[in-house]
Amino acid sequence: MKVTLIAGSNREQASSTQLTRYMARLLEEQGFEAEVFSLYEHQLPLYGPGEAYGHEEVLKLSQAVKSAQAVVLTTPEYHSSISGVLKNALDFLNSEYFEGKPVLSASSAGGTVGVSSLGTLQGIVRNLHGLNCPEWISIGSDQRKFTDEGEPADQATELRIRKAVDTFVHLIHRMYG
Amino acid sequence: MKVTLIAGSNREQASSTQLTRYMARLLEEQGFEAEVFSLYEHQLPLYGPGEAYGHEEVLKLSQAVKSAQAVVLTTPEYHSSISGVLKNALDFLNSEYFEGKPVLSASSAGGTVGVSSLGTLQGIVRNLHGLNCPEWISIGSDQRKFTDEGEPADQATELRIRKAVDTFVHLIHRMYG
Repeated sequence: MKVTLIAGSNREQASSTQLTRYMARLLEEQGFEAEVFSLYEHQLPLYGPGEAYGHEEVLKLSQAVKSAQAVVLTTPEYHSSISGVLKNALDFLNSEYFEGKPVLSASSAGGTVGVSSLGTLQGIVRNLHGLNCPEWISIGSDQRKFTDEGEPADQATELRIRKAVDTFVHLIHRMYG
Repeated sequence: MKVTLIAGSNREQASSTQLTRYMARLLEEQGFEAEVFSLYEHQLPLYGPGEAYGHEEVLKLSQAVKSAQAVVLTTPEYHSSISGVLKNALDFLNSEYFEGKPVLSASSAGGTVGVSSLGTLQGIVRNLHGLNCPEWISIGSDQRKFTDEGEPADQATELRIRKAVDTFVHLIHRMYG
């Protein structure tokens, strides 16, 4: 089974993207195919009228989500909400891409935690008829340090991420088992 | 399998409670045991320090939710959020009562629709580690009329409720199948 992980930052070395890559590794350890779709590497056009739907990167995004049985959405927390970059990407998709699929949400905030963005994501995912995972991941402040090997430097943070991913994997197995 | 439906109004003939009883009937048609726990019929004490946890009605609430494999939460929409009566009831419960259980949320509003309360409920359910159903139900204005037989007077509303309950039932079967 395949999980697509959308990294919602437009910065190359974003902590939210490092978190996404670490989650992808955990999912691969559990036997999943994991595709990280970085919105920095894939520069989407702005959603709106016109030819945007036919844009090469939009087609890649559509294909990445359509081909997945489950989705991870990761975002930096800006102004107590998700990044415009991630929102813009989601605006190209509809419930056909998410219906019935387990969705794990994660955020990275400059402050201690960033659950406002996760609440926002939960509402968006429900509107898209995705199945919100009961666990989510919020990292902030020093929890956002990753080692050169791409692992969380803080052990408690690593355990927290593993626990949420395990709950997500359990949900995927229930839905497709 | 058992579903407990908490009706979050303190008014005897509340439309949200009529909606709850109708959902219970649909669940029974699909082979579930359905217990409606009306917060008008069960007058809980205010949550807080002291002896409240030992109150007879609180014990009944705890038992009703603990014995269920899935939960329905119904609320009137007051001030763009859930009723204090329902919030007070939920304050007596913790994640042990909700973990892994599918939860369907529904609201009844004086205006056209009332999704602010449903967004609030979604956040509370996730905090309790319940599994939010991707569909929810919002009725408002004339959609809130029920016949003497307890069915929605408006056919489109009835179909909308049936669709959400069907999605909920499908989710329950996936989680326990």
